[in-house]
Amino acid sequence: MMELHVMSNGKWALPDFVSMISPLHPHVSHVHIREKRRSAREIYDGVKGLKQGGVPGEKIIVNDRVDVAESLGVRGVQLAYHSLDVAEVRKHFPRLRIGKSVHSREEAKQAEEAGADYIVFGHVFSSTSKPDLPPKGLKALQDLVDDIALPVIAIGGITPDKVSSVRETGAAGIAVMSGVLEAENPRKALLEYKKGWEI
Amino acid sequence: MMELHVMSNGKWALPDFVSMISPLHPHVSHVHIREKRRSAREIYDGVKGLKQGGVPGEKIIVNDRVDVAESLGVRGVQLAYHSLDVAEVRKHFPRLRIGKSVHSREEAKQAEEAGADYIVFGHVFSSTSKPDLPPKGLKALQDLVDDIALPVIAIGGITPDKVSSVRETGAAGIAVMSGVLEAENPRKALLEYKKGWEI
Repeated sequence: MMELHVMSNGKWALPDFVSMISPLHPHVSHVHIREKRRSAREIYDGVKGLKQGGVPGEKIIVNDRVDVAESLGVRGVQLAYHSLDVAEVRKHFPRLRIGKSVHSREEAKQAEEAGADYIVFGHVFSSTSKPDLPPKGLKALQDLVDDIALPVIAIGGITPDKVSSVRETGAAGIAVMSGVLEAENPRKALLEYKKGWEI
Repeated sequence: MMELHVMSNGKWALPDFVSMISPLHPHVSHVHIREKRRSAREIYDGVKGLKQGGVPGEKIIVNDRVDVAESLGVRGVQLAYHSLDVAEVRKHFPRLRIGKSVHSREEAKQAEEAGADYIVFGHVFSSTSKPDLPPKGLKALQDLVDDIALPVIAIGGITPDKVSSVRETGAAGIAVMSGVLEAENPRKALLEYKKGWEI
């Protein structure tokens, strides 16, 4: 069973993302509020919107703002290099599931030792959101999966036709933004991602 | 005894602010890390720097980032309109002293009802950091102090010669940024502020 994470991209008005994704949550394992430029209040309102839209708190992950995640009792946080350390969050917010975004094996090892619950690694393929950086590629994903015990979620440029190659690396799942947010039919896109995992 | 809050202004490199203020902490009741554009990691490092510089955690207040304040066990947080609600922080982070920045009596009343510990009100005088907004003035400060039970800290354009007029309103203290950060001699400036309160 694939972990399918859908993340807001910081560009949509947050209420629009919330309205789009809430009714689709049965097709998704995790919804991330990933809004690096928005205030605590806006993020709080976004998470509340998800909950009011029927998304279980167990599926909701907040990027960076540990305080918002804790206040609203959602499942977890996604931490990046600019966030609080994994070990600090593990110690002071033991209830939260902690994901760490990494771009190398070294970062992944550090996150594992610090107590992260899973890794988001990318970008694996060329991505419109990272046009200037070369993708890591499937080989690097494969090496990471082989090397660390934590579940690895692949991110970056993953289209439905690429899902089976990701699955073959042993990754635990995928994270998508534009593949769903920019799809003409987001529900159909989600179903295609899921189907890709099963083939 | 005046509460004398010194706040970073978001412009200085944070390590420079930390180096400047740490040895002066005996003259200050609270040091605020007030960095609206910096990451959790940068703010965390700034607070750690203060502690390593000898500033007691009991004197340290973090603006907006409740998670950083909680992780480092410092005294409190300063919340603004874009922050988590006072009531949420009171409920989920009961250890923290909560200040709320307000610009009107209505906001102050709300913060009081929500469980704030003190109010920061301003800007009272013309301020270089708010050049386009008219100051609230001493009369509005006086009305606020008369109207709410919480301690009120005045902020905005307060120079040492204005401190006695602030004290006469019954305010609990003052908060300063440029008055110390842009002073030729920050230590001397702090002593002048304290002296102004005693006259």
